[in-house]
Amino acid sequence: MQRNITRMQARMNALGVRFRPHVKTSKCTPVAQAQRAAGAQGITVSTLKEAAQFYADGFGDILYAVGMVATKLPQALALRRQGCDLKIITDSVASAEAIAAFGRQHGEAFEVWIEIDSDGHRSGIKPGEAALLEVARTLHQGGMQLGGVMTHAGSSYDLNSPEALAAMAEQERAACVLAAERVRAAGFPCAVVSVGSTPTALSAAQLDGVTEVRAGVYVFFDLVMHNIGVCETSDIALSVLTTVIGHQAEKGWAIVDAGWMAMSRDRGTQKQRHDFGYGQVCSTDCEVLPGYVLSGANQEHGILSREGEADTDIATRFPIGTQLRILPNHACATGAQYPAYHALTEDGELATWSRLHGW
Amino acid sequence: MQRNITRMQARMNALGVRFRPHVKTSKCTPVAQAQRAAGAQGITVSTLKEAAQFYADGFGDILYAVGMVATKLPQALALRRQGCDLKIITDSVASAEAIAAFGRQHGEAFEVWIEIDSDGHRSGIKPGEAALLEVARTLHQGGMQLGGVMTHAGSSYDLNSPEALAAMAEQERAACVLAAERVRAAGFPCAVVSVGSTPTALSAAQLDGVTEVRAGVYVFFDLVMHNIGVCETSDIALSVLTTVIGHQAEKGWAIVDAGWMAMSRDRGTQKQRHDFGYGQVCSTDCEVLPGYVLSGANQEHGILSREGEADTDIATRFPIGTQLRILPNHACATGAQYPAYHALTEDGELATWSRLHGW
Repeated sequence: MQRNITRMQARMNALGVRFRPHVKTSKCTPVAQAQRAAGAQGITVSTLKEAAQFYADGFGDILYAVGMVATKLPQALALRRQGCDLKIITDSVASAEAIAAFGRQHGEAFEVWIEIDSDGHRSGIKPGEAALLEVARTLHQGGMQLGGVMTHAGSSYDLNSPEALAAMAEQERAACVLAAERVRAAGFPCAVVSVGSTPTALSAAQLDGVTEVRAGVYVFFDLVMHNIGVCETSDIALSVLTTVIGHQAEKGWAIVDAGWMAMSRDRGTQKQRHDFGYGQVCSTDCEVLPGYVLSGANQEHGILSREGEADTDIATRFPIGTQLRILPNHACATGAQYPAYHALTEDGELATWSRLHGW
Repeated sequence: MQRNITRMQARMNALGVRFRPHVKTSKCTPVAQAQRAAGAQGITVSTLKEAAQFYADGFGDILYAVGMVATKLPQALALRRQGCDLKIITDSVASAEAIAAFGRQHGEAFEVWIEIDSDGHRSGIKPGEAALLEVARTLHQGGMQLGGVMTHAGSSYDLNSPEALAAMAEQERAACVLAAERVRAAGFPCAVVSVGSTPTALSAAQLDGVTEVRAGVYVFFDLVMHNIGVCETSDIALSVLTTVIGHQAEKGWAIVDAGWMAMSRDRGTQKQRHDFGYGQVCSTDCEVLPGYVLSGANQEHGILSREGEADTDIATRFPIGTQLRILPNHACATGAQYPAYHALTEDGELATWSRLHGW
């Protein structure tokens, strides 16, 4: 994990941008503290509960990167009144009007960033749309602080070649910079140009015009990222410790006590170049056991088998009681199944790091 | 929920068997209390943490329905020493020997049930296998209490006709009864014959020779169960409340603030007759809005769209701020994403029911 943090921060420093990690991956204060110690400036959150928790734990500069709606404005106001430098986002005139009206009513100039759609995968205003300037005007003339523009090229998750990833990073950069230029040309402020996803952050050749990058899953990495091509399995810093509890030897199955509750139901590698089932099997010291995956999962049972031909020696290879580690498809989803991490420190000690759950 | 509980208990009473609900679905004491109030005798759990929590909350008769391994025996012993009538299971001579050795070492005659494989989907000994009697002998002669046999026809989840479900229920019953008869014929005790899954429990024509049934998800039901054919969508007692936060109108998308963190990554309907994506969209009073589903999900964003042709009026139909409910694919997985349920009582009040998380 520390190596992943160092690698990403060094890249961001070399590209000349600030780095604002997305803490939705870990939802864990010691992890975010390690990111900050390495040079991160501010954090990104996916829920207002995360914002409140991380603010209480000493993080002041927080971007809530899900479109604001009226019902959540009182929570955002309360955080700002406590002193949290919370930034919110919007991608519609309707939400911008609601934010401005609520802000004026309560004497609060919310800092708002406009969400840009750089790849068509989810939310945001396309950089060339008329709505971009309408939203900017609504916020600025409505008395809010128009802080900047932000985008997330989530469709980078569908790629797996360095060339395609670099092209997507450039598409993400260019779209967000174009949006910022249009906002500024119309006479509105736009200090921040914020982009990012783990694959594009690790693939961008240059980030001219960008002021900050956001990324989350790089901190742990996972099998989806490995299939995309931005990490080795040896970079994956999160695993699930499990025990063999039985066999169906003639089928080549070992039954382990990690099912989908332990791994999550995420099957993100299903459509990628290597389908790892519910995860890659490793020894307890995290050596990959090639070809062995969790091929099936019930709530508290996993089916461990060899890809291709059944291993009818499986009961000898992995006797009952054998401990193994499973690398996850998707670190954000697997982590969410646990109240805490068991963190291995450099001196070999185990620390328990609690993790936020719920909303 | 109360209707689902009443329905299942009435069926079990009519079939002349005891009912032992699997509380892994709700992991929630008030839910299990409602099941007990309706007539349930004992509970089934999927983790020893559940066993400890439910024992602390007044449930004494507990079946831990995941194969026991040596490393968990101290926890099981501690629970029994506290007075919990904990039953454990095994499907191998190796585990049976470990249980018997540990039990003798600590002067504890564990009650052990033998797990039977009635459908080839996971763990268990086939009823005709020689290993069945070896395990029985190991436990009985090793000084343990051989309590009975149990099976779970999990492959009932792959079916969707009343005839196939009734046939699977009969297969489950017959396999478990045959195993019990073999154990008894060999001179060993076998008081309990325990079978069950929600689909088979609701489809069995008769349960001759069975002493108890286990089922879990029936308490909430979900879209997977609806596709299997054992409930209507109006029986589904668990839903996720969400708010529309934006649109991509030309694509026919509404963006909601329920993503996979809110719904879980479970895509159990993907291979069924109706793929509901990440869930069926309903009004806040749970009227199904036919054809509208969560077609995509990121961590805190859901993409709500119409099946088939895009609904380009979506922004008018579901304006920003609209509240909706989403019915889940899999109640066990969706519930696991939450620290608590907001339970609607018969008099219209909301109660907060906490839910167990982690291991």
